[in-house]
Amino acid sequence: MTLPHGTVETPVFMPVGTQGTVKAIPQHLLEALDVRILLGNTYHLYLRPGHEAIRRMGGLHRFMSWDRAILTDSGGFQVFSLSELRKVTEDGVAFRSHIDGSSHFFSPEHSMDVQIALGSDIAMAFDECTEYPADYARARASLDMTLRWAKRSKDHFEAHKHDRPWGPEPDEQTPNLFGIVQGGMFADLRRESAERLVEMDFPGYAIGGLSVGEPRELTREMIAATLPLLPADKPRYVMGVGYPDEIAEYARMGVDMMDCVLPTRAARHGLLFTSEGRLNIKNRQFAEDQRPADPNCGCLVCSRYTRAYLRHLMQAQEPLSAVLNTLHNLAFYLETMRRVRDEIAVEKAGQSAPQTA
Amino acid sequence: MTLPHGTVETPVFMPVGTQGTVKAIPQHLLEALDVRILLGNTYHLYLRPGHEAIRRMGGLHRFMSWDRAILTDSGGFQVFSLSELRKVTEDGVAFRSHIDGSSHFFSPEHSMDVQIALGSDIAMAFDECTEYPADYARARASLDMTLRWAKRSKDHFEAHKHDRPWGPEPDEQTPNLFGIVQGGMFADLRRESAERLVEMDFPGYAIGGLSVGEPRELTREMIAATLPLLPADKPRYVMGVGYPDEIAEYARMGVDMMDCVLPTRAARHGLLFTSEGRLNIKNRQFAEDQRPADPNCGCLVCSRYTRAYLRHLMQAQEPLSAVLNTLHNLAFYLETMRRVRDEIAVEKAGQSAPQTA
Repeated sequence: MTLPHGTVETPVFMPVGTQGTVKAIPQHLLEALDVRILLGNTYHLYLRPGHEAIRRMGGLHRFMSWDRAILTDSGGFQVFSLSELRKVTEDGVAFRSHIDGSSHFFSPEHSMDVQIALGSDIAMAFDECTEYPADYARARASLDMTLRWAKRSKDHFEAHKHDRPWGPEPDEQTPNLFGIVQGGMFADLRRESAERLVEMDFPGYAIGGLSVGEPRELTREMIAATLPLLPADKPRYVMGVGYPDEIAEYARMGVDMMDCVLPTRAARHGLLFTSEGRLNIKNRQFAEDQRPADPNCGCLVCSRYTRAYLRHLMQAQEPLSAVLNTLHNLAFYLETMRRVRDEIAVEKAGQSAPQTA
Repeated sequence: MTLPHGTVETPVFMPVGTQGTVKAIPQHLLEALDVRILLGNTYHLYLRPGHEAIRRMGGLHRFMSWDRAILTDSGGFQVFSLSELRKVTEDGVAFRSHIDGSSHFFSPEHSMDVQIALGSDIAMAFDECTEYPADYARARASLDMTLRWAKRSKDHFEAHKHDRPWGPEPDEQTPNLFGIVQGGMFADLRRESAERLVEMDFPGYAIGGLSVGEPRELTREMIAATLPLLPADKPRYVMGVGYPDEIAEYARMGVDMMDCVLPTRAARHGLLFTSEGRLNIKNRQFAEDQRPADPNCGCLVCSRYTRAYLRHLMQAQEPLSAVLNTLHNLAFYLETMRRVRDEIAVEKAGQSAPQTA
């Protein structure tokens, strides 16, 4: 995947950098982890420090000193999950800030303006993330509106995507806008949503509205029903997943991009993902455990610190706890995806070998 | 200064790593800052995770994965400043933990046992940090007890300093115990304290009981009155100071070692020390300031991030804020001391040049 800010090998897991920072991790350590793309949250950055301030300062890349790729979500999901007193109309969503209760309005056009001001490599169409459970009629009405919003998003994005004061992107790459498939937990609605989005011809497609509380088999079923309808030569992105075994599974199914707060958020609560399963590092049993969090992990944390030390940092509520736990979880997620990429490369080599024999 | 865990150039500023971590900073970044010695707090580590646990795990160096030098304080200052319901007798101090209210007792002998279990390169004699203000009679009584405690500390330390299950130190260096000068704000008491401590022949001496609320001129006066009485060929350590200009001044007066929570604690509250003075990074005026915190600083933070970004991280209460602010303040303190060392080296070269001419 070639983007204005560099090339990204897929399948890729994107760490979440909600407020212009992957919580607790300095950018040079993200680079050392070989993070090539991270996600910024439009809703948060719009509220604080504000997209106009970020535009004046040269965009999000420059603001946070990150010259690799950034994907921004549309703000839709956060508006629905975090804000208060929201009111959805055909025009857009009125809501109150979760920070100070102030009134705001997001439309597809406004979401595009904010994402253009941030300078994302990949912007996302403004969508309504259909809640779970939702009945058929509700899921259909929601997906219809999301499709109309996708059209408005695309029209506005195409007309304004170069409205940035800091000049053309390197390598003459233009920023991208991805469409988002909705349709609740109904395979036929997912199909319809995908087909109508593909007609609009986006440079990439996301499957949204998953991992919203449904059982995992249903997540898998919806991905399996939707993926074949999205062009294989364009990036296919499943939003908001998941556990390490999930992301590996979906990547093997053909998903190119995923993001999730799980590795970073869980880390801050002491939940570590390892090759031997999950570790709640707060547990008493680790008080004098001299092993690394994951004996099979070569990350900065596992090559230096013991479980006993990581547990102590949590017990003592030390800020280094979040730093080290997050570093490990991200390393584990990125290594998981690296292994899947290697497997896929080997498979492809195997498939092409007979042809040359 | 050659210690069991490496050589330390003096004058040196020692970052404070209260609970086995310099708050928010991974050890490899402390190494990158060229930190050669840090301070651990005996009181905190005794309470959590416990000195016996640390001893079983091979000492504090191994526990926190830090193979450079560590100085531990005696626990006295924290017992007096943090614990509850403390009762001081000739034997020692009974107190209740600030964490859970449990009852504990620290004597000179117990403080030595804890510091030996931690495996410090430099342990400190158990002292009573005389409060400010204290009248002459009180300061005298307190210093007399501190001297008796110094003797008990030394006897116990010498008898038990090798009671560590993890074998001899590298390079056959033995751990050190420093004595602590007290005497309130009375120059003659300081003198008496220093002379009687020097008679006991410690490998290094600290001046304690300063920076406890007294005006800065008084701090300087007490240091000036005490320093000449301490052997110049042994390390002279002023505890708990100070602001950048203070540590530079005291270093030029002949102080070899200093420690203070100021650079790390202030950082977490958004106070940055720079070559142009102090910066309260929370201030509105920095909201779109594209300059680095200190234009004359080459640290990891100043070479990459803007004031606007650092302010945003504070406003958004992001954990990266503490990481970056602390990194800068420590870099600034260490650079301050590096410059003083260079000045002293130049002076010495200048003094010796005529002799060779």
